[in-house]
Amino acid sequence: MPRYALKVEYDGAPFAGWQRQADQPSVQGAIEAALARLEPGAHTIAAAGRTDAGVHARGQVCHCDLSKDWSPFRLSEALNYHLKPLPVAIVDAALVAGDWHARFSATERRYLFRLVSRRAPLTLEAGQVWQVKHDLDLAPMQDAARYLIGLHDFTTFRSTMCQATSPVKTLDALDITQVETDWGMEHQFRLRARSFLHNQVRSFVGTLERVGAGAWNPEDVQDALEARDRAACGPVSPPQGLYLTGVGYPDDPFVA
Amino acid sequence: MPRYALKVEYDGAPFAGWQRQADQPSVQGAIEAALARLEPGAHTIAAAGRTDAGVHARGQVCHCDLSKDWSPFRLSEALNYHLKPLPVAIVDAALVAGDWHARFSATERRYLFRLVSRRAPLTLEAGQVWQVKHDLDLAPMQDAARYLIGLHDFTTFRSTMCQATSPVKTLDALDITQVETDWGMEHQFRLRARSFLHNQVRSFVGTLERVGAGAWNPEDVQDALEARDRAACGPVSPPQGLYLTGVGYPDDPFVA
Repeated sequence: MPRYALKVEYDGAPFAGWQRQADQPSVQGAIEAALARLEPGAHTIAAAGRTDAGVHARGQVCHCDLSKDWSPFRLSEALNYHLKPLPVAIVDAALVAGDWHARFSATERRYLFRLVSRRAPLTLEAGQVWQVKHDLDLAPMQDAARYLIGLHDFTTFRSTMCQATSPVKTLDALDITQVETDWGMEHQFRLRARSFLHNQVRSFVGTLERVGAGAWNPEDVQDALEARDRAACGPVSPPQGLYLTGVGYPDDPFVA
Repeated sequence: MPRYALKVEYDGAPFAGWQRQADQPSVQGAIEAALARLEPGAHTIAAAGRTDAGVHARGQVCHCDLSKDWSPFRLSEALNYHLKPLPVAIVDAALVAGDWHARFSATERRYLFRLVSRRAPLTLEAGQVWQVKHDLDLAPMQDAARYLIGLHDFTTFRSTMCQATSPVKTLDALDITQVETDWGMEHQFRLRARSFLHNQVRSFVGTLERVGAGAWNPEDVQDALEARDRAACGPVSPPQGLYLTGVGYPDDPFVA
């Protein structure tokens, strides 16, 4: 049974999230249904990161087991054909070893969060960024972000529903840049870690936004972190600005 | 009766174009309906460029006459409130002289066309770019574009439905750049002229795409131009990659 790694891009808007659910559309369910068109029967795929409802992906990675030998190119073409017209696309595919696992072999997850500051409602970017109507100061957000880098107990920034065994994680990067775009001032948060807790990125961004707005001082973020108390977190940002941009593996299956 | 200039952004996808139509949704109709919520009665607005169905705008400009004195800020806020949930936003507003005209006072129109080359179907960019599945060569497209700059009879590159009195126009700029994006190789065409003929940008881009694909030589574009014959034009590109990005006026009403 050959195993294939798939790199997946999707618009999260029409989905209740990555994970298959009995009564709601999911990205996992859409890909499994497309696989069943290629090889009848039940398929179960595993992903590197189970994104929430409304969260997008540029470089989600999952794997599937098939009985036939497919050329990776033909497999991605066939899946994309059956995924139409859903906003899910297989952008790369690769044959991997039978013990390779999209989730357990991953050593890094990368996320982007897009936060736009402008007064008028969004049109072309609606559903793809988080919009606030007030201005944001970049430097205080960058100052606050520094407290979050490194090895910490992130209890404050994890959902109470989080199923990870430990709240202690290492955050490798949280870079914030400001870009003047045609649709307003966009703040881009780029995060990198071996793994993230549930709602960790949205808890970070929602809290840092309060710093950018001037409602919190950068030091308040340090206090919140040190409190190790979910109640100390700022508001959790909405999902539509969040993108799973990539997953790292010791041996990247997509590098030819 | 004070006159106001409005800068408008919209996603063209759900509209049959800018121009009001009896039985189909239009951007003009949406804004006129919003104006009627502010001041009851019939409103007729004029725009700098009447975009076709599916064409987007970042900086369309139109003007309206109202009986009350509105602060420009309050006017844009009130219109945006009534435009919801349509993907149309008033991004700026300004009081102008009674003889100022969004169309006739304009001395420059600027367009962007986004052409993406990638194999997998689009997800997040669907409806916002023109996708081709093959690679495109930048340099030949740039070479071909040079033939189009300047004063020419553009009969080849105008729709047979075009109502302009003359096909002779000056094209001030047609710059093509290539950007490696997360969603593939994007070619951006930036055009600038006092005015454009109907379907001129899409006729240019559709023809230049043939050059980028290697089906036409750059010199074939010169021959097509000199033929002054609509039949000599390449295929007209689809509308969804086209954006009216801005309109120039001798005295920009939106510069505070």
